[in-house]
Amino acid sequence: MPPTSLKAPTTSSNPTLRKLEEWYDKHEKEIQDDFFSFLKIPSISADPAYKQDVLSAANWVRDYLQKSGMKAELWETSHYPVVFASKMVAADRPTILFYHHYDVQPVDPLELWKAPPFEPTIRGKEVYARGAADNKGQCFYAMAALRAFFELCDALRLNIKVFVEGEEESGSRGSVEIAKKRAKELKADHLLIVDLGIPAPGIPAITLGLRGITTMEVTVRNSNVDLHSGGHGGTVLNPNRALVNALSKLWDASGKIAVPGFYDAVKMPTKEEQKIFNQSFDETELSKNFGIRAFKPEPGFSLWESNFLRPTMEINGISGGYAGEGFKTVIPSVAKAKISCRLVPDQDPDTIAALVAKYLKDQFPSELEVQVTLDHGGNPHRSSPSAPIAQICAGAYEEVLGKPCQKLLCGGSVPITSLLAEVTGAEVAMIGVALDTDDFHAPNEHFGLDRLRQGFLTIGRILAKVNA
Amino acid sequence: MPPTSLKAPTTSSNPTLRKLEEWYDKHEKEIQDDFFSFLKIPSISADPAYKQDVLSAANWVRDYLQKSGMKAELWETSHYPVVFASKMVAADRPTILFYHHYDVQPVDPLELWKAPPFEPTIRGKEVYARGAADNKGQCFYAMAALRAFFELCDALRLNIKVFVEGEEESGSRGSVEIAKKRAKELKADHLLIVDLGIPAPGIPAITLGLRGITTMEVTVRNSNVDLHSGGHGGTVLNPNRALVNALSKLWDASGKIAVPGFYDAVKMPTKEEQKIFNQSFDETELSKNFGIRAFKPEPGFSLWESNFLRPTMEINGISGGYAGEGFKTVIPSVAKAKISCRLVPDQDPDTIAALVAKYLKDQFPSELEVQVTLDHGGNPHRSSPSAPIAQICAGAYEEVLGKPCQKLLCGGSVPITSLLAEVTGAEVAMIGVALDTDDFHAPNEHFGLDRLRQGFLTIGRILAKVNA
Repeated sequence: MPPTSLKAPTTSSNPTLRKLEEWYDKHEKEIQDDFFSFLKIPSISADPAYKQDVLSAANWVRDYLQKSGMKAELWETSHYPVVFASKMVAADRPTILFYHHYDVQPVDPLELWKAPPFEPTIRGKEVYARGAADNKGQCFYAMAALRAFFELCDALRLNIKVFVEGEEESGSRGSVEIAKKRAKELKADHLLIVDLGIPAPGIPAITLGLRGITTMEVTVRNSNVDLHSGGHGGTVLNPNRALVNALSKLWDASGKIAVPGFYDAVKMPTKEEQKIFNQSFDETELSKNFGIRAFKPEPGFSLWESNFLRPTMEINGISGGYAGEGFKTVIPSVAKAKISCRLVPDQDPDTIAALVAKYLKDQFPSELEVQVTLDHGGNPHRSSPSAPIAQICAGAYEEVLGKPCQKLLCGGSVPITSLLAEVTGAEVAMIGVALDTDDFHAPNEHFGLDRLRQGFLTIGRILAKVNA
Repeated sequence: MPPTSLKAPTTSSNPTLRKLEEWYDKHEKEIQDDFFSFLKIPSISADPAYKQDVLSAANWVRDYLQKSGMKAELWETSHYPVVFASKMVAADRPTILFYHHYDVQPVDPLELWKAPPFEPTIRGKEVYARGAADNKGQCFYAMAALRAFFELCDALRLNIKVFVEGEEESGSRGSVEIAKKRAKELKADHLLIVDLGIPAPGIPAITLGLRGITTMEVTVRNSNVDLHSGGHGGTVLNPNRALVNALSKLWDASGKIAVPGFYDAVKMPTKEEQKIFNQSFDETELSKNFGIRAFKPEPGFSLWESNFLRPTMEINGISGGYAGEGFKTVIPSVAKAKISCRLVPDQDPDTIAALVAKYLKDQFPSELEVQVTLDHGGNPHRSSPSAPIAQICAGAYEEVLGKPCQKLLCGGSVPITSLLAEVTGAEVAMIGVALDTDDFHAPNEHFGLDRLRQGFLTIGRILAKVNA
């Protein structure tokens, strides 16, 4: 597919920025081709069937970073490898560490995709593909910006490290292990997590808080085989019935999460934080963008508080019996649900997982075979708006987009963030140009070519500022 | 696959039975080959993807009946055709109508099958294949018995009709229409529904009651697209949560079905009926056969009453979000459940469906988009133990199996039974040699070659007795 040119890209009066713009526009076709070849690799880390593809994506990233002029290698882990790259000048110069991930979410329901998820397609100025926004698009423009920066920079006066993991979408187990193990090599002054977004097109923002996460799967079994709902209906407890009953008890009548102790460690933000972050959510906008019909914030909290400052409980998947076309009158032997909680300071993922698992098990009759398997977790994270790197990022954004930079919280999680902050000793800035409407984790995920350019320019500007 | 011979089949002292036995044993290889070719057709009526296969099965049955010496044709319907065959001698002679179905249940979960469901496999004396028991095995031995009977009978003194439908497992809509429309051609004195079973190997039984059924699918939608559970968790009502909450309210705290009016039309059996049918269920046996851990009869009723004399509500399928390997942190746009109720006299399928649909809808917040689609229904049925055909069947069974014939009720449904009884004006006997442990509707469905022979002999004896 030929590249789609952007109409009249803006040309900046800032000389560094102008050089970056010229570099981008000169390399536009190559950038797009490389981006597409990255998007074509179905690196779904949650599904073991894609193991070879996830590994291919790791190699692709290592090769790209190497070609850009960095020393790049794979750090093997118990799960998927981390791509680690570095370009070091001197120990007394500042070190900046980039974080990305090369894995993507599963693609179901496949039938809702307008084009195959791993055959990138341009409609308007958007590239449609799984991972276009989360996180291949953002990973890619940052890597391209590094390449451009090395070419354009007259003298390198900073150390650069890049950490790209392959299991952000499936728990970061191996990445966490290796980050702890090789903490020394990861030491940095500034950590840039390039997996976040902006509130609207052209509005710059840095993100100062992420929620944590804990995920689990509950499996309930009654019989060893599926049973005929005529021959056995009336005698046997249907696992679907037991499961919906147990899951319905995760919330009390008011709508609060009913698990005892769930809210105990939740710290309310300070007044100052509330002042920084306070924002009103526009239900009309959300309904327009996503067709949302029913809102359900936590009782006693506004939509935005409930989305950013409060923990959640979600049933991400449920299955039991026959759900295909037509009808099958079966009492299934097994029913399952996948559950996740988003966490806020100071909730601990392991503690919450244990509380939820115990409570859930208690909701089933004791005769049933019930298993709750813990999947993965990550701590909530907060970073400071006054950190130098936060101010550098805000400045770069403002130059590129020409508007004041906002400060955001994010309801999502990048599970490894708080661990990386700890082992690197770095101050963290969480940035990116994804939009809420990019349909990441959903069918027809997309990312704008205009934003690919904006992201590239912003990272280039950040590098130049740190190098100054 | 070569045929598996039965060890030392019994030889009867009754001359008619002996002739049937000799015929069967002489044709054993051919019988098994034909049975296997019937089983190989994946005639799953619930799934439109198998349409051509369902039609192939119809043609296969028509051809077999034609080769056996009957006039056979397809009656087209708005759904799948009925195979109708007849052999008429004289209007003043008794007419016997056979009912079977050539369609089968879906096969999921496919991964639990030890061999592909449409590649019949013999292990021990059991044939493993989807439909082996329900109903291809029983349909096939009856057709083979007709063929043998025509060959062995010196003078035909009865009229024979055969009605084989192709949508018993998916609602019988088209079959019901055509049965009403062609009622005149279906007139009969005796109706044999050959889709039932016996309580244990070698124990003969006729079935005098079936439950009715009504089925529906509920679909709940909130957003137009799947949403990221981080980016939106806390603001939007997850359809999975709304669904489990609504479904959990189908039962009250005691375990009774909570739908107002659900039990209103339920007629308790008379004392005489209770005396005929009273049987104790052996929980230990059920646990042994099926690994059932938790029993849940309707409060106030025993297991057997709850299985045969009381209506049920089952969630046959539930799905929403990502249920595959690994984890996907999604708030799905849609969640679904398939629900069926088994009905007893005098519950009406349409009335019950409307009550359940209304109640279910009322359990959801009004902002959500909720659809309840009614699927199919069938009336409950009772037949009389004193009908001549019931006594003939009982006698034939006793001769073949050498034990007193039991009278049973069945918790399952053959949705068209009560309509066929009405339009034909016939007295009904519900027979068969399936076992509860045949895993019909489940993976690894199977049927014994010994029972194929017993069924064949029983049908042959019934025909000879009516012909006497």
